[in-house]
Amino acid sequence: MASKRRLKMGLIGGGPGAFIGDVHRKAALLDGNIEFVAGAFSSDPARSRQAGEIYGIDPARAYESYEIMIKRELQLPPNERIDFAAITTPNNSHFPIAAAFLKAGFHVMCEKPMTFTYSEALELQKIVKETRLVFGLMHNYPGYPMVKLGRDMISTGELGKIRKVVVQYKQDWLTTALEKEDQKQAVWRSDPKQSGAGGALGDIGTHAANLVEYMTSLKITHVCADLTTFVAGRILDDDVNCMLRLEEGAKGILHVSQIAVGEENHLAIWIYGEKKSVHWNQENPNYLHVGVLGQGEEIWKRGTGYVAQKSTAAARGTRIPPGHPEGFFEAFANHYCNFADTIRAKLAGETPSELILDFPQVEEGVRGMLFIEKVIESSNSTEKWTEMNNQ
Amino acid sequence: MASKRRLKMGLIGGGPGAFIGDVHRKAALLDGNIEFVAGAFSSDPARSRQAGEIYGIDPARAYESYEIMIKRELQLPPNERIDFAAITTPNNSHFPIAAAFLKAGFHVMCEKPMTFTYSEALELQKIVKETRLVFGLMHNYPGYPMVKLGRDMISTGELGKIRKVVVQYKQDWLTTALEKEDQKQAVWRSDPKQSGAGGALGDIGTHAANLVEYMTSLKITHVCADLTTFVAGRILDDDVNCMLRLEEGAKGILHVSQIAVGEENHLAIWIYGEKKSVHWNQENPNYLHVGVLGQGEEIWKRGTGYVAQKSTAAARGTRIPPGHPEGFFEAFANHYCNFADTIRAKLAGETPSELILDFPQVEEGVRGMLFIEKVIESSNSTEKWTEMNNQ
Amino acid sequence: MASKRRLKMGLIGGGPGAFIGDVHRKAALLDGNIEFVAGAFSSDPARSRQAGEIYGIDPARAYESYEIMIKRELQLPPNERIDFAAITTPNNSHFPIAAAFLKAGFHVMCEKPMTFTYSEALELQKIVKETRLVFGLMHNYPGYPMVKLGRDMISTGELGKIRKVVVQYKQDWLTTALEKEDQKQAVWRSDPKQSGAGGALGDIGTHAANLVEYMTSLKITHVCADLTTFVAGRILDDDVNCMLRLEEGAKGILHVSQIAVGEENHLAIWIYGEKKSVHWNQENPNYLHVGVLGQGEEIWKRGTGYVAQKSTAAARGTRIPPGHPEGFFEAFANHYCNFADTIRAKLAGETPSELILDFPQVEEGVRGMLFIEKVIESSNSTEKWTEMNNQ
Amino acid sequence: MASKRRLKMGLIGGGPGAFIGDVHRKAALLDGNIEFVAGAFSSDPARSRQAGEIYGIDPARAYESYEIMIKRELQLPPNERIDFAAITTPNNSHFPIAAAFLKAGFHVMCEKPMTFTYSEALELQKIVKETRLVFGLMHNYPGYPMVKLGRDMISTGELGKIRKVVVQYKQDWLTTALEKEDQKQAVWRSDPKQSGAGGALGDIGTHAANLVEYMTSLKITHVCADLTTFVAGRILDDDVNCMLRLEEGAKGILHVSQIAVGEENHLAIWIYGEKKSVHWNQENPNYLHVGVLGQGEEIWKRGTGYVAQKSTAAARGTRIPPGHPEGFFEAFANHYCNFADTIRAKLAGETPSELILDFPQVEEGVRGMLFIEKVIESSNSTEKWTEMNNQ
Repeated sequence: MASKRRLKMGLIGGGPGAFIGDVHRKAALLDGNIEFVAGAFSSDPARSRQAGEIYGIDPARAYESYEIMIKRELQLPPNERIDFAAITTPNNSHFPIAAAFLKAGFHVMCEKPMTFTYSEALELQKIVKETRLVFGLMHNYPGYPMVKLGRDMISTGELGKIRKVVVQYKQDWLTTALEKEDQKQAVWRSDPKQSGAGGALGDIGTHAANLVEYMTSLKITHVCADLTTFVAGRILDDDVNCMLRLEEGAKGILHVSQIAVGEENHLAIWIYGEKKSVHWNQENPNYLHVGVLGQGEEIWKRGTGYVAQKSTAAARGTRIPPGHPEGFFEAFANHYCNFADTIRAKLAGETPSELILDFPQVEEGVRGMLFIEKVIESSNSTEKWTEMNNQ
Repeated sequence: MASKRRLKMGLIGGGPGAFIGDVHRKAALLDGNIEFVAGAFSSDPARSRQAGEIYGIDPARAYESYEIMIKRELQLPPNERIDFAAITTPNNSHFPIAAAFLKAGFHVMCEKPMTFTYSEALELQKIVKETRLVFGLMHNYPGYPMVKLGRDMISTGELGKIRKVVVQYKQDWLTTALEKEDQKQAVWRSDPKQSGAGGALGDIGTHAANLVEYMTSLKITHVCADLTTFVAGRILDDDVNCMLRLEEGAKGILHVSQIAVGEENHLAIWIYGEKKSVHWNQENPNYLHVGVLGQGEEIWKRGTGYVAQKSTAAARGTRIPPGHPEGFFEAFANHYCNFADTIRAKLAGETPSELILDFPQVEEGVRGMLFIEKVIESSNSTEKWTEMNNQ
Repeated sequence: MASKRRLKMGLIGGGPGAFIGDVHRKAALLDGNIEFVAGAFSSDPARSRQAGEIYGIDPARAYESYEIMIKRELQLPPNERIDFAAITTPNNSHFPIAAAFLKAGFHVMCEKPMTFTYSEALELQKIVKETRLVFGLMHNYPGYPMVKLGRDMISTGELGKIRKVVVQYKQDWLTTALEKEDQKQAVWRSDPKQSGAGGALGDIGTHAANLVEYMTSLKITHVCADLTTFVAGRILDDDVNCMLRLEEGAKGILHVSQIAVGEENHLAIWIYGEKKSVHWNQENPNYLHVGVLGQGEEIWKRGTGYVAQKSTAAARGTRIPPGHPEGFFEAFANHYCNFADTIRAKLAGETPSELILDFPQVEEGVRGMLFIEKVIESSNSTEKWTEMNNQ
Repeated sequence: MASKRRLKMGLIGGGPGAFIGDVHRKAALLDGNIEFVAGAFSSDPARSRQAGEIYGIDPARAYESYEIMIKRELQLPPNERIDFAAITTPNNSHFPIAAAFLKAGFHVMCEKPMTFTYSEALELQKIVKETRLVFGLMHNYPGYPMVKLGRDMISTGELGKIRKVVVQYKQDWLTTALEKEDQKQAVWRSDPKQSGAGGALGDIGTHAANLVEYMTSLKITHVCADLTTFVAGRILDDDVNCMLRLEEGAKGILHVSQIAVGEENHLAIWIYGEKKSVHWNQENPNYLHVGVLGQGEEIWKRGTGYVAQKSTAAARGTRIPPGHPEGFFEAFANHYCNFADTIRAKLAGETPSELILDFPQVEEGVRGMLFIEKVIESSNSTEKWTEMNNQ
């Protein structure tokens, strides 16, 4: 194991008390190859400085806005300034911030959904192409090793032709009108001006769709959706039913809810091929269940030799032996590892391998924004099927 | 416990080697209150006689056809002749046989689907009403005690208003073209002339729909379906994706497959109300999982005092203590118990209680045939929603 | 499938409301090859007659005692009298009743524990040998197909040499002093005069020990036990901790409790060989979990072709397809099938095959009584190990 | 959230490729309140320097021995030198290293088992008392939030008096003679000169015993053990069977194995009180199963409000919402948080609260070493019970 260049990270959003910003920070730092050196944590200069202090950041680099951050960081010597910015602000600001950092020459890791609208997504895709910088999108679930194992079993043909996919993401935290009780997360997520056009759809539906396309390597071609807002007074959807058609004749079911009482983050997927099937469940993520026609069920366990033999990507994303559970942070951290290694490859003038490029990027973000747009279009339509093809 | 009049059962179909006929026979006899005295097991007189011998039936009452059976049974003194006929022949013969027995004055227990077409179902409904005889339909899953517990928790309002239902029934036995290998079950089930217009839809989709309506006490009002035939050369569907709308604004997902590699009889349902949810899985049926908003998950166990206190129907359908598993036969037998007690009540001139009437009847059969018709109509339509209302 | 001679069963004990007698009756009759024709259900003649009426027995054959039953049955023509007696009375009467029926020339199926004491067990063994009649002992758990599969995998060497066994049987129904509340089961089970020297030990500990010896084909050679009576005022043990040594150097743990709050009938076993392991759990009994060194976990499912290929005994004990759960009754019924086929073989002058002889017999009963005796001896001893070898 | 003083950590052992040293490093750094500044990673100066480079350590502080490390660190200004040393070397060196750092005035976090012998443990206890420094012992499992919840439910009396405990720790990695294939972990762990007198007993048996005493707050008073070495040529035990007696009349079973084919790190515990029971399983650690007499099973989920209400310690040890799994690293990190906060309290002249002191310390280490000694004594004895009381 050779020493890796320690990359410098700046964080946008993620002040104390934030959920996802905290996860980004811990995940990025987990493996010791990324340093946390700067941030714009709050538009209130005092709060931003206080956050920086808590995080052990040089006070001069705890900025009150991302614009100032870009300006000042550029004034630092190249080997001191941040290598990349991690964006963990509400959805409506992802695009301008990401665009600004890219245009200033910084790599970007962005929390999902990538942008506020599909047209912004296309615009951002253009910017990424032009700047040729590394852009990571935090759809964290493909970061789990057993998801990677499933993807690899499918792409090598072990399951045979894929016929059917069922994916669900069930939560219950919006069962009641939490947003009226000033719960911070609930307020911005249920406000279309901050969150975008999708409620549960944008928040977790995009994760489900992304997982389907990642694991099967098949694109969703058509959706037929029924969005519902169950809680009185709520503007955005809190429940999504959707039938899918995928490339190569595969069919699917996607259902997502934030009013599913008793469910926490129950993302689970079942993929049926002609010869085998795989099943994975985020709430107990260290196992992949494999169905074999005429031969019963197998449980493959993260961290074992036989998994490593089948999937280099799964092995690479594993830190500890089987039976010692890894979780949410490690999945996140796996994306940061690959994102950072891709930056390192670029800095070294090398072409990153497929193994290293295995993290969601701008294309996945475009698909996600298109998915939101098309599901809403479908839900409002009396036509059964709505096509979902990139422009 | 008073002595019950032992009812006399005749079986149509169900010769040696038959699957469902065998289950009917064992289930009907399990509790010792039904005698098996006659049958028309095969159109080959020798084979019918041989079956009768194996079952210990008086050779004179092992008939070569149901027509002859009716004629001869009517010639017996009333206290010797069968009380009811159990019909376990292929789908296309259910209607004429059921109609003939009813018209001859015999009660009928019929395997599902009730008839070959929706119009036959309506016709049979008329006959049942006119004859005022007892007609049972073997949708066996509502026979499970924990399904009854769930139904009772919902009907007493414990879950609050029902918002969302997800139901699945997954099998893999038709993953390959088994019907071309002369597997008996596969041959007739994949032949529209014997099976009817629905493949997986008719065979197991109707069970899923029946379970939804039974447990929620809500009718399905609209379907939006996507039927698929994955196996080349097969005529009927082997996979069903369907979105549901139910009464009172509830939404649902129903997905059913016979090509889901690794699945056996994976019928499972999740029902989400405003306050609680329930989840039941046929493959481990002695438990009901209850989600409580803000309080974690509870596992209710069949045969306990606390279940009995909540659901008389669940307690009534229980034979042995908790932890000793009951299964498929007992669920079947529960329907036979209620069916038989309803006949006994009629014979005694009494009105059967709701508890006793708790078994699927002709109305459920009409709903099932309508479901098949409407799902096919929806699948062929470019309109999103197809209404599903009885005539 | 040829017609089988229908055997005639008489039941001792098992009046209405009895638990285990009811199970014997239903299980014996499940497959339609045994008729229920006589019984001594209660020492009160009126109650015995009433029970007979409920069960549809000829009133003349509902006897007030087993002695009278034997006398009268012997007066019937051979082809009318019972073929065997099923004994489901409290433990202290098993021996005299079994001995009497055997000496009168009737085959016997006896509920466990076989006798009241080890010396009675040896005496009964002698009688069985002398009379050369068929004697079945209802240790029901080896009746489960997946237990048979495990046994067959072990006996064919698939697991390699067996090293370690862990078995548990956990219940909670005696957590409080139920016997003081006049609960019928609790009263006789906690009374050493009716139940014998073992409490939890005799009731469920013997099941655990029997399962170990059945599945591994290894005898327990030494025990080191710690019996406890947790509930104040109770005479017999309600909790058993025990270390085992088995033949061929295998080691084991056996723990059993009737005060394990939250447990119902949680009998489970784990057996570790040099190459593979098996795990089975009675509360979800249709699955066998197989651990394979360096290859993850496999779940084998009852009713499949691959199970049938590995274990003829498992296939023979299966009535319905995989995914449709079988349970406690079917396991019981499997013993009755083999017991009855053994009788039929004897009647036909044939030697029953090993497949047919696969039900617990008098030898297992002797082992069970020895186990009770030796565990109590060990618990009272300051020596670590107590040998457990048959005389 | 106020800013915390960032503590400075030095690591002994834990060069690249090490398992447990890597976990210590990542866990300590996870929350951003500890800096990693120095280490003695290898006795080979070049390798130690290289490790330091990989970890981003000042080359001057990557030492070739702990003795030199102590000397040089003491030469640094107090606010630059390490606050504590984390010891992750093989078992036989724990004592001298820990003693040296303590005597030099540094706090210590030590991997378990604490020392090589019981007498060393007593000696270390004396040193800790004399130096009044903070000493943490990495029995990581009490770091899991749901273990803390169980402990709190027990200590507040919710389970009633504890009657019975069953604990297991099952692995299969030493099923074959891996130590002969030069597997690094296997070599030192199976060598009594490096590992100490216990094999599986010392490696994982001590974890099981520690978990019992932590959760129940009851001391083990007697053991009755049967140690086995199954693999030919191995010196130390690879399997442990043990009966326990605990304070207040509680009884227990402890079984541990490293030859349990198909098991990875299957540490699980069941604790039965008079009113409730709890069950926890390390391989799916975010749930606590609670049995309630007469009321079914409850599943409590990490990260929820109702868990926080019942256990401040569980809430404090939680980083992300329910349904997003936390694992092994977070449990480790929880001990580091409490260890570091205890140091901070001492530095601030404050008495740390019980909540902060909730991590294993020298007393737990003494108990662990005594457990190893007494279990071996018991296994070699023909007496049933061996007392286990601290001197």
